[in-house]
Amino acid sequence: MYTTQELAELADFYKNQLLNDTVPFWFPRSFDEEFGGYLLMRDADGSLIDTDKAVWIQGRACWLLATLYNTVEQKEEWLKGAQLGYAFLKEKCFNAEGKMYFHVDRAGNPIRMRRYFFSETFAVIAFAAYAKASGDEEAAELARKIFGTCMQYADGSLKMDPKFEDTRPSKGIGIPMIMINTAQQLRESIGDPRCDVAIANWIKEIESNFVKDDIRCVMEQVAPDGSIIDHIDGRTLNPGHAIEGAWFILHEARYRNNDPAMIDLGCRMLDYMWERGWDKEHGGILYYRDVYDKPVQEYWQDMKFWWPQNEAIIACLLAFLMTNEKKYAEMHKQIHDYAYAYFHDKENGEWFGYLHRDGRIAQTAKGNLFKGPFHLPRQEWYCSQIIQQFLADKSINS
Amino acid sequence: MYTTQELAELADFYKNQLLNDTVPFWFPRSFDEEFGGYLLMRDADGSLIDTDKAVWIQGRACWLLATLYNTVEQKEEWLKGAQLGYAFLKEKCFNAEGKMYFHVDRAGNPIRMRRYFFSETFAVIAFAAYAKASGDEEAAELARKIFGTCMQYADGSLKMDPKFEDTRPSKGIGIPMIMINTAQQLRESIGDPRCDVAIANWIKEIESNFVKDDIRCVMEQVAPDGSIIDHIDGRTLNPGHAIEGAWFILHEARYRNNDPAMIDLGCRMLDYMWERGWDKEHGGILYYRDVYDKPVQEYWQDMKFWWPQNEAIIACLLAFLMTNEKKYAEMHKQIHDYAYAYFHDKENGEWFGYLHRDGRIAQTAKGNLFKGPFHLPRQEWYCSQIIQQFLADKSINS
Repeated sequence: MYTTQELAELADFYKNQLLNDTVPFWFPRSFDEEFGGYLLMRDADGSLIDTDKAVWIQGRACWLLATLYNTVEQKEEWLKGAQLGYAFLKEKCFNAEGKMYFHVDRAGNPIRMRRYFFSETFAVIAFAAYAKASGDEEAAELARKIFGTCMQYADGSLKMDPKFEDTRPSKGIGIPMIMINTAQQLRESIGDPRCDVAIANWIKEIESNFVKDDIRCVMEQVAPDGSIIDHIDGRTLNPGHAIEGAWFILHEARYRNNDPAMIDLGCRMLDYMWERGWDKEHGGILYYRDVYDKPVQEYWQDMKFWWPQNEAIIACLLAFLMTNEKKYAEMHKQIHDYAYAYFHDKENGEWFGYLHRDGRIAQTAKGNLFKGPFHLPRQEWYCSQIIQQFLADKSINS
Repeated sequence: MYTTQELAELADFYKNQLLNDTVPFWFPRSFDEEFGGYLLMRDADGSLIDTDKAVWIQGRACWLLATLYNTVEQKEEWLKGAQLGYAFLKEKCFNAEGKMYFHVDRAGNPIRMRRYFFSETFAVIAFAAYAKASGDEEAAELARKIFGTCMQYADGSLKMDPKFEDTRPSKGIGIPMIMINTAQQLRESIGDPRCDVAIANWIKEIESNFVKDDIRCVMEQVAPDGSIIDHIDGRTLNPGHAIEGAWFILHEARYRNNDPAMIDLGCRMLDYMWERGWDKEHGGILYYRDVYDKPVQEYWQDMKFWWPQNEAIIACLLAFLMTNEKKYAEMHKQIHDYAYAYFHDKENGEWFGYLHRDGRIAQTAKGNLFKGPFHLPRQEWYCSQIIQQFLADKSINS
């Protein structure tokens, strides 16, 4: 169990890491005053390894800066930084048909389009947070418009290019999960009347189709009827991803006056995937597992990535705060201690992204096409904020 | 240096491994008498982990069986096995437009089409070898026809769906490399008048555009004019792949009466990429390196895969046989000893596919979407054959 004093210290720890270790690694040096957006592909010491821009990460960085401005301190540097990302995303990252690229060069010339709409979901949260920070009405309208497009992709009325033929249809947990969080961010920054109902439906979709109580598991993909597809891809689990989904649902439970069914669902998802993902030998959350313990296609399945640890830190903390169950405080302490011992770069700040199973560093980049200022600062920001809110509620109620 | 006696022992070792360890792991149990083709996705002990069929591997397995029949022994089992693969590939693995799938289910229903034409190149070598084994004229015609299609993809007159936008054009070494080997196999099984000129041109393309003598490196991709693209993808080297290219070129040099310029080119490529790929700490060929030693996007870049070791075993042996240079015998012994110590599964036969850098097994599958009966049996077959040929030539000349 964490005492009130210990929780207050944890909140201070996360806030201090966020503001004095993580954010200063990235900003202001990553602001691209010349071309707009951010230069985020950096080695351990902060040196630039590539000037290209990953559109997911441009959106996430813009969201972070605007969110810090909205919720931590109205620093001019953060607002101006958010403006750089907003303008770059809006002006450079859409093709003629309005679909967003995945990867552009420093000046915003397109390098790669992918079929997915995750660039769009990160633009929604970035534009919404920036609209709140700046009062820019166009940004708010664009956030709502792109969210509408995402909803159409999510319900299938807008089609993505298919990756697979029709022989064995499947659906992933990724789309309802990302949509829950996108809608939550949109709702909590600038508000949108579509969000409450849509979130409830996506949570129902996850509970009905992906959560398997009989085998204590959250599937990463299933057949359209929710059944398990007993082939390599269909059997592959992503525990960190499911645990991220668990805290999105716990967050929603809190928004809905601590809805007990949602708390129960979020905690079940966390329990199941902690059982499958926690590495009892070396600590940390493993990347992939097979639902029946067969070999996973991805040969690097036993590596430790930074972001599953971030998601598990949030999920365990939130589960503890909402249930007061001792086991979640213990799990939180385990993952927190592991992650800050192995991932945190005490010399240069921020975290390494990629460790071998035993904790040795596999690759030193702090930023690349997939890693940037997002999961770690989001975790530190969210955890410090949520503890402060719980402590404030407690002092009002006591 | 290897003595004649030692070389004869090595040839025996490879032949014995091939016929008494590697091939029996796969066959006859993988023959799918019910649906045709092969059931190749197997765990370490041979148990089936998936009934799906990877089209690359179906073609490669068919090539192996036909080649064993053509060059080692006219075993009825191998011919019948090759026939199973040939019929499955021909009847089930092409779409209505004649493009081959990447992944089908057990019955041959399509799961995934990819933009590349590697399914086609493996079909060419399979059909050509099967045509030689069976005398089937239709198989020979199909091999030549599909080779023509591959040549059109390779020269750009047939377009693949682009993966990237036009901002930063690039070309990979993979296409000239695979075409050299495809043409060599076609020529040496059933003959084709197009091959000699085409092979010379692809070798020239590799030498002019991908081999960088000034920095002792073989690039994996370059700009259309052969310059290095100084971004993460453009800097990524694949030493095992370049070493595979080296032995294709040494093989061609031998075919061309030991063409000294080609021997020199193949040996330079091997030297450069051995320097960059050999792991001085743990042994074996590393997967990816950055040309300027920056972090590679692929976080698993320091793993040891089975196939780069197979390619390096062939390349070092062939370089030694063709130059009689002591260093190549030493390199061959190093990689041979390392690979058979760490990859070979002494309990169940065949090799593991995926080791961590330090040699621990990362993933136990012997067969999956990318691994099957190809690189290892090809290495054991090629090495035993080439030594026998050199020893035969030597006894004639002495």
